[in-house]
Amino acid sequence: MSEHALIGSDTVEGTAVYGADRKKIGSVERLMIDKLSGKVAYAVVSYGGILGIGEGLYPTPWSTLKYDINVGGYLVSFTKDQLERAPKFATNDDWQWSRDNDKRVHDYYKATPWDG
Amino acid sequence: MSEHALIGSDTVEGTAVYGADRKKIGSVERLMIDKLSGKVAYAVVSYGGILGIGEGLYPTPWSTLKYDINVGGYLVSFTKDQLERAPKFATNDDWQWSRDNDKRVHDYYKATPWDG
Repeated sequence: MSEHALIGSDTVEGTAVYGADRKKIGSVERLMIDKLSGKVAYAVVSYGGILGIGEGLYPTPWSTLKYDINVGGYLVSFTKDQLERAPKFATNDDWQWSRDNDKRVHDYYKATPWDG
Repeated sequence: MSEHALIGSDTVEGTAVYGADRKKIGSVERLMIDKLSGKVAYAVVSYGGILGIGEGLYPTPWSTLKYDINVGGYLVSFTKDQLERAPKFATNDDWQWSRDNDKRVHDYYKATPWDG
């Protein structure tokens, strides 16, 4: 096996998300896991009003979050402007984890799909 | 992208684990995620005395758990005898997520490593 570091899912939940200027802008609500491949597909991030873009849950491609040991959380490179039009939902019932939405989210963030 | 189904990490945590005879024998405490590959490496399963093998947290290769929609939980094919000698720990501080332990656990369950 290659080198690796493991982290508990319950540790990731609640971890802070920091923006490009290293200000805290949100936190991870949960991970969405692909049952078939066992890969983490998304972090669902809450930006609960911190950025002034209104509350909401943002499906965020896992590949766009980088853990930064110095800030003790995940760094993202999104600006407030980018997030204003990002796909989001209010409650879990408002979002379909469909292939259409997968494509929409990954196109939006120009991210590589976890199963691509 | 290929077909997939996603599940929330907070939904997996607490989900029941059923043995070969479809009796509930434990529950998932958390998932351990490989930060580099974004793959789920283990479910940490608690068999809290249900099998009479004493309490403990068992690092269980993710590939050995199969979700069964009929029982509403994960099915494993381990017998009580098999679990009695399985690698386990009492508290998180008692376990090193090291390559040696990865090999030991995967050898024990004859499971394919997530990054193999």
